[in-house]
Amino acid sequence: MHIVDMNSQILHENERIAHENKHVFEKHGLFVTNLMSAPGAGKTSVLEETIKRLKSQYKMAVIEGDLQTSIDSERIEAMGIPSHQITTGTVCHLDARMVHNALHDFKLDGNDLLFIENVGNLVCPADFELGEDLKVMVFSVVEGAEKPKKYPVMFHEVEVVLLNKIDLIPYSGVSLEELEKNVKEVNPKAVIFPISCRTGEGIENWIEWFKNKISNK
Amino acid sequence: MHIVDMNSQILHENERIAHENKHVFEKHGLFVTNLMSAPGAGKTSVLEETIKRLKSQYKMAVIEGDLQTSIDSERIEAMGIPSHQITTGTVCHLDARMVHNALHDFKLDGNDLLFIENVGNLVCPADFELGEDLKVMVFSVVEGAEKPKKYPVMFHEVEVVLLNKIDLIPYSGVSLEELEKNVKEVNPKAVIFPISCRTGEGIENWIEWFKNKISNK
Repeated sequence: MHIVDMNSQILHENERIAHENKHVFEKHGLFVTNLMSAPGAGKTSVLEETIKRLKSQYKMAVIEGDLQTSIDSERIEAMGIPSHQITTGTVCHLDARMVHNALHDFKLDGNDLLFIENVGNLVCPADFELGEDLKVMVFSVVEGAEKPKKYPVMFHEVEVVLLNKIDLIPYSGVSLEELEKNVKEVNPKAVIFPISCRTGEGIENWIEWFKNKISNK
Repeated sequence: MHIVDMNSQILHENERIAHENKHVFEKHGLFVTNLMSAPGAGKTSVLEETIKRLKSQYKMAVIEGDLQTSIDSERIEAMGIPSHQITTGTVCHLDARMVHNALHDFKLDGNDLLFIENVGNLVCPADFELGEDLKVMVFSVVEGAEKPKKYPVMFHEVEVVLLNKIDLIPYSGVSLEELEKNVKEVNPKAVIFPISCRTGEGIENWIEWFKNKISNK
């Protein structure tokens, strides 16, 4: 079978810039989280719920990635958090250079946390290091329990999997147990939190883990 | 902003092979449908519902695209329909060459319809012509009403948008009206069918339109 060349030169160049980003993040004492998911899994909602609960304790900034519009960035700024929108046009992921350029528009000093909300895509973003400390994946349970097997790449790359929209489980016919089993099969080390951004269920468990992670950096 | 080069040479080569595919499809009198969506929107379920209703009238075959596993292909074969699974590894879309190579494994003669179920991805598959007659997009309403604005590329490329999982609308807080408005804004010509593969609602409307499309080719 013919496989389109992912262009290892692009990936190599990306790694170099990601390394530079990491250096910048460390110099400014920033803990950086890369949030990834398929479109509509609830990345921005997870961000909103997380920001709400950490706002009094940490200074935060957000980089938003989308093909078009600044809808997500506006949602974040409505919470009083500085946000920079990257619109990628037709490009299906953020790369380290896009993040690097976005940093020029930020005051990095004085912030504790930077969230990068990647473009909604279950495949490509996992291939591009951004210089982050933590990779978090949001997965909507409504997408089906077999998805970790069919799209293992991102599940394999991340440290945390947030299984969102569990409030829809009674209506969707998806088994949370089977889904968790499939995540563990692809990535036995994954930390899994079933959550619902609509009802708030499970969010505190994620927040507690996240705060521990930040303080143990 | 730096944009990763999509490599126009790859796209040009893809178009050449797509043209060859088209020629092969026409020679064998096949009507070919390319089904695209984000992961978990319900492409395979749409296929199952469609096959069920057209089985007595047409001879059909299916090409399935996924990163890993043959789960989808097995679902189709369980219905007595020949299916070929393409596993792309880390590649986030089908290209014309993959489809071309898959054709070698099929008996094309004697079939009326070929369905190609693309890799679950709301961005990249829209860039790769496969030689198909019809591009159909499945969109899960649970992914949110603003998605057509944020990810316009695929909505813009397709002739039909199937808004799936409408049975979850009462529980998801998504407005079908707003979603339809946003699809129309991105693609005023799009034919839209709200459907539910779980309850069967709306499927007959899609089937009727599809049968007309086939007979008017």
